[in-house]
Amino acid sequence: MSSTFGQLFRIHTYGESHGGGVGVIIDGCPSRVPVTAAAIQRELNRRRPGQSDLVTPRDEADAAEILSGIHDGLTLGTPISILVRNTDQRPGAYDEMAVKYRPSHADYTYDAKYGIQAPSGGGRASARETIGRVAGAAVARQVLDFLHPGIEILAWVKSIQELAATVDPETVTAGTIESNPVRTGDPAMVETLIERIKAIRAAGNSVGGVIECVIRHCPPGLGEPVFDKLEADLAKAMLSIPATKGFEIGSGFAGTLLTGSEHNDPFRMIDGRVRTTSNRSGGVQGGISNGESIVFRVAFKPTATIMISQKTVTSTGENTELAGKGRHDACVLPRAVPIVEAMATLVLTDHLLRQRTHRHPR
Amino acid sequence: MSSTFGQLFRIHTYGESHGGGVGVIIDGCPSRVPVTAAAIQRELNRRRPGQSDLVTPRDEADAAEILSGIHDGLTLGTPISILVRNTDQRPGAYDEMAVKYRPSHADYTYDAKYGIQAPSGGGRASARETIGRVAGAAVARQVLDFLHPGIEILAWVKSIQELAATVDPETVTAGTIESNPVRTGDPAMVETLIERIKAIRAAGNSVGGVIECVIRHCPPGLGEPVFDKLEADLAKAMLSIPATKGFEIGSGFAGTLLTGSEHNDPFRMIDGRVRTTSNRSGGVQGGISNGESIVFRVAFKPTATIMISQKTVTSTGENTELAGKGRHDACVLPRAVPIVEAMATLVLTDHLLRQRTHRHPR
Amino acid sequence: MSSTFGQLFRIHTYGESHGGGVGVIIDGCPSRVPVTAAAIQRELNRRRPGQSDLVTPRDEADAAEILSGIHDGLTLGTPISILVRNTDQRPGAYDEMAVKYRPSHADYTYDAKYGIQAPSGGGRASARETIGRVAGAAVARQVLDFLHPGIEILAWVKSIQELAATVDPETVTAGTIESNPVRTGDPAMVETLIERIKAIRAAGNSVGGVIECVIRHCPPGLGEPVFDKLEADLAKAMLSIPATKGFEIGSGFAGTLLTGSEHNDPFRMIDGRVRTTSNRSGGVQGGISNGESIVFRVAFKPTATIMISQKTVTSTGENTELAGKGRHDACVLPRAVPIVEAMATLVLTDHLLRQRTHRHPR
Amino acid sequence: MSSTFGQLFRIHTYGESHGGGVGVIIDGCPSRVPVTAAAIQRELNRRRPGQSDLVTPRDEADAAEILSGIHDGLTLGTPISILVRNTDQRPGAYDEMAVKYRPSHADYTYDAKYGIQAPSGGGRASARETIGRVAGAAVARQVLDFLHPGIEILAWVKSIQELAATVDPETVTAGTIESNPVRTGDPAMVETLIERIKAIRAAGNSVGGVIECVIRHCPPGLGEPVFDKLEADLAKAMLSIPATKGFEIGSGFAGTLLTGSEHNDPFRMIDGRVRTTSNRSGGVQGGISNGESIVFRVAFKPTATIMISQKTVTSTGENTELAGKGRHDACVLPRAVPIVEAMATLVLTDHLLRQRTHRHPR
Repeated sequence: MSSTFGQLFRIHTYGESHGGGVGVIIDGCPSRVPVTAAAIQRELNRRRPGQSDLVTPRDEADAAEILSGIHDGLTLGTPISILVRNTDQRPGAYDEMAVKYRPSHADYTYDAKYGIQAPSGGGRASARETIGRVAGAAVARQVLDFLHPGIEILAWVKSIQELAATVDPETVTAGTIESNPVRTGDPAMVETLIERIKAIRAAGNSVGGVIECVIRHCPPGLGEPVFDKLEADLAKAMLSIPATKGFEIGSGFAGTLLTGSEHNDPFRMIDGRVRTTSNRSGGVQGGISNGESIVFRVAFKPTATIMISQKTVTSTGENTELAGKGRHDACVLPRAVPIVEAMATLVLTDHLLRQRTHRHPR
Repeated sequence: MSSTFGQLFRIHTYGESHGGGVGVIIDGCPSRVPVTAAAIQRELNRRRPGQSDLVTPRDEADAAEILSGIHDGLTLGTPISILVRNTDQRPGAYDEMAVKYRPSHADYTYDAKYGIQAPSGGGRASARETIGRVAGAAVARQVLDFLHPGIEILAWVKSIQELAATVDPETVTAGTIESNPVRTGDPAMVETLIERIKAIRAAGNSVGGVIECVIRHCPPGLGEPVFDKLEADLAKAMLSIPATKGFEIGSGFAGTLLTGSEHNDPFRMIDGRVRTTSNRSGGVQGGISNGESIVFRVAFKPTATIMISQKTVTSTGENTELAGKGRHDACVLPRAVPIVEAMATLVLTDHLLRQRTHRHPR
Repeated sequence: MSSTFGQLFRIHTYGESHGGGVGVIIDGCPSRVPVTAAAIQRELNRRRPGQSDLVTPRDEADAAEILSGIHDGLTLGTPISILVRNTDQRPGAYDEMAVKYRPSHADYTYDAKYGIQAPSGGGRASARETIGRVAGAAVARQVLDFLHPGIEILAWVKSIQELAATVDPETVTAGTIESNPVRTGDPAMVETLIERIKAIRAAGNSVGGVIECVIRHCPPGLGEPVFDKLEADLAKAMLSIPATKGFEIGSGFAGTLLTGSEHNDPFRMIDGRVRTTSNRSGGVQGGISNGESIVFRVAFKPTATIMISQKTVTSTGENTELAGKGRHDACVLPRAVPIVEAMATLVLTDHLLRQRTHRHPR
Repeated sequence: MSSTFGQLFRIHTYGESHGGGVGVIIDGCPSRVPVTAAAIQRELNRRRPGQSDLVTPRDEADAAEILSGIHDGLTLGTPISILVRNTDQRPGAYDEMAVKYRPSHADYTYDAKYGIQAPSGGGRASARETIGRVAGAAVARQVLDFLHPGIEILAWVKSIQELAATVDPETVTAGTIESNPVRTGDPAMVETLIERIKAIRAAGNSVGGVIECVIRHCPPGLGEPVFDKLEADLAKAMLSIPATKGFEIGSGFAGTLLTGSEHNDPFRMIDGRVRTTSNRSGGVQGGISNGESIVFRVAFKPTATIMISQKTVTSTGENTELAGKGRHDACVLPRAVPIVEAMATLVLTDHLLRQRTHRHPR
């Protein structure tokens, strides 16, 4: 179900970049959960373009209107509908693209799939589509806080090209990440990363990188055997974010270099709880959380929109050249950090509700 | 829905490693598709242990019985039920594990989730669970051949630890892969890989590696915008396979090192079709296939079962040591190759049916 | 999934009677289908209160705004979001009801379920909730016209209390039904029915009745064996409409009086097609349409809101009396006619798309 | 999803009347619930043909084999697979039907849908298909007993043709119903009903009737607003049973004759609980249970198989005559009683689990 995510805590999103607006219906939200509009707006603001001179100058207020499902600050148990109007529409800027397929964008594939495209700006493939996800996750975040306080979900820029930050997932704080415009967790790397992004932008080019995310204090037992393993649902969630090309959890691809005796996480009783003394599993075993920190990484390709002339074809099948001239980010990673957190939050909230239906009553 | 995979072409699997049997219901299969039991059995045999001296000596016939949904070699459009009996049961071999959690296995997390465990051998976390997937995919494969002949889906061992094979996804053949017990696509590496696996097994240890997979001649237009992107569903499919820790498509994690101008795939008209002259996208753009080969890689951790003594705890919370003594593979990758193909086949068949409902009629 | 209806052609609805608005996301709609806003608004106007002096005086424009998914009069294949603002809010009128449970309304059961209620007017149990259904079905209607022209779906008031209309489902026209405010298909009964409704309203009381619906020119083959039989999905659709208490198809409850030889519909070849010479099956056999007219009836109880004092309890558990004083219909059936048609249209469109995925290719 | 029923407590069924067997996978069952094979077999025996001289002489043991999901009498939380082998296969008896469409059976519509039919006996439209439902519900029944002891679900034959039993849903017992072969709740009518069935059978004809069902001690709060109303899910469940033509709850169609003041159920505080002093609502208000007994009725048409010659057509389009000569019931109602109970049990168990995810935590 293309525009629906989640089994019990479900979001349904809609909206193109250039139409009446974008939004989300959140269904399956438990009743009587305190939810504030301010917390939703705060997350939308984190996702928004124009927050620093590092990211796209397109500036939209992205003001969220809650249409239903919440009364006097409490959820009613009914669908929560949130609408964000489109305001900054400059369709003219995309004119050429309407007939020339932008390389490594979704113009051609949407056309191949539907035989029709949104007029401009990428339609559902636009970054604005993620507004519905972030709004939905902002509600999920408040549900988590209410049902199971203490779960922390933090993401940060781990690397831009070959420039890698050094971050300890167990101790990094939101304060550190949000204090710099590149949203890395390593203060020593901030300037280096900013310089790289500025240089690449000056060249009309773009860069990608890796975002790392940790879920701390997740209770053991979340995730399902077989197909809906927690890491499988996280992988799907992350690969559904535009521009992602990879996902790894715990030891990931590097773990393939180790032997079993090096890789296995020994169990020990610590403070009366079952713990592992290493965490190459990344907090999941057999698809189910084991109570350790869940740590994963997501690869983002360099932004497809560049200012350099490229070879392409028209929708009528002629070879041509295209020079980008719309609005764009030279590096989407700082803005993608809250989106990674949002998708992780949705997965976790859904599985927390799912576990309520499976758990053996005692 | 834990044991269900797919939206339109759906499999529902069941079965523990040590009970009456394992199996699958395939629902949503179109009618009048020629399906042979022999093709199903062939895939089950590829997945089976005991095929070479490289893999686990546990030898089970894994004979598939078709209980419903097929008559005179044609699908009826009704659910196809396939059962594989468990025959080689030696519960005694797992006795110690019933009370000691095996490190980096699912023993502890199943217990945390359900408060109860299958008696032995891992229950649903056992490798036998994949029988239902492989049987379901063997039917899907025949559906693909009928609805859209020519789609090829091939996987191979790309690396074991640091030993990497050189394989061209555009030209590698099933013949090459199946001709060696390690199922790599690089004949020059066969002996090296075999030696590594034998050495590690002799040491009572285990190794992991990377499996690469290509889908050739996929029509453009498969996959859905937003959440059910083709790469997102592939990522979920792959991370649902036991022992996987990572997924990447196209340029993957290495693509994060490039700039946009290096990474973008130029479009050109070739033989009257829209093509890209490079394929860093890995065959998908905006979540939708673009007609190029879909290429992805899956990271498998070293097998958790080793013959070396390890620190662990009991289900009653006491620190202890565990020495593995059950049946195991020192390297699961050769047997995982058909499972990677199976999951890819299920994703593709499902999206092929989904596209039938979306496509604009012309 | 409480607020989602349909498997492939899906609507997700939201909205309370007294909040920002009500609306719907339509997902799974094929691309390139011509859809006009005027056709959507026309159906919303048919559902709207205040159309005649027979129904509730609450007058809301119910103006639909299309937020996404349609461009230049064609569907994009992406989610279509439609919003109808709430405008005529007089919460004061419902003050007493906020603390006294209205008999045979949903006030008590919502409270029992969620521990919280919408501030006034019934929340999701309000008749305004059906706006999303009608808007979604208005799009579905245009999809039907495009994919399979000629399918007619007509409903009418069959009876009010014991006053029964005589209507031939094979020949009744929309013109006849829409030409009278009570929306019956029997011109001879119009005055009698109007008088009954007016008399009952003057008494501060209410009445119910039966709505009959026909689907003409439905192709054979729609509906699924076992659980998603066409009549099962129609039954669910109809019983999901507020105030319904029964559903019957074809011979229905009266058919239980016949013997098999009286009830069976003989097959004959007519004009080269397989036809039945009677239609006690009501157009479905084994859950699948047989090409004959699908005829069913829906029982609506008398409206729960009356102006006569009734015994009830408060939300704090005290016995009390309640005299209704809000806005209400003495008879909802005329306004329910387009809702019955809407739900039937949604079921049929969904099954038409589903059949595209099952049909044996020839 | 044709062969799947339920959202959280889900059954997936399979199997034709004449193949390897029929069965069910039960997914979403909570862990650590005591489940006995004997209780499953008992329900299957109630459904089985050949229990008395009133029903079809086809005698099959219908022995259930549990393949997975249960260990030492406790559910594991994993899918429970139950298989019942087909044993009494006499395909010859159906030979003529393979080419002549049986009137008011599903032969023609299956052919229209799939372009292929099971070889004989109705395929998925056979009564044997209900075995999977009954086995699944027998597990659900034990889940209900464990999670919420005290809920009673009882069905009985309310009428055969015009012969109506007098039964009080509040007091009727399983003992009364099961003590007579016609499974009515009115001892005074047993002989009359039996005579009618025997007479109609002697004439080679068949009869239908109405089954009534009560759910007693259902907690308030089950069922969902809007589409998944408890009565909507019950209606779908009942209309999915072969040979059903109607469903009504509480006052049903007769309720359309009343005024609102006659129909509304007054609330009163009784023994500290909110109760209604009448129950025309039938235990549901606004789609949600109110704690009163849920009472509904299901119309069954006369069995389509009769021994009298009928007009029909062949699958190649020629007019012909058909005289039934297979095995059949002159009246399916006694055997349908446990199936009605089974479907009601599945609906209730599913909604009980669903309510666990919605309820406001206090």
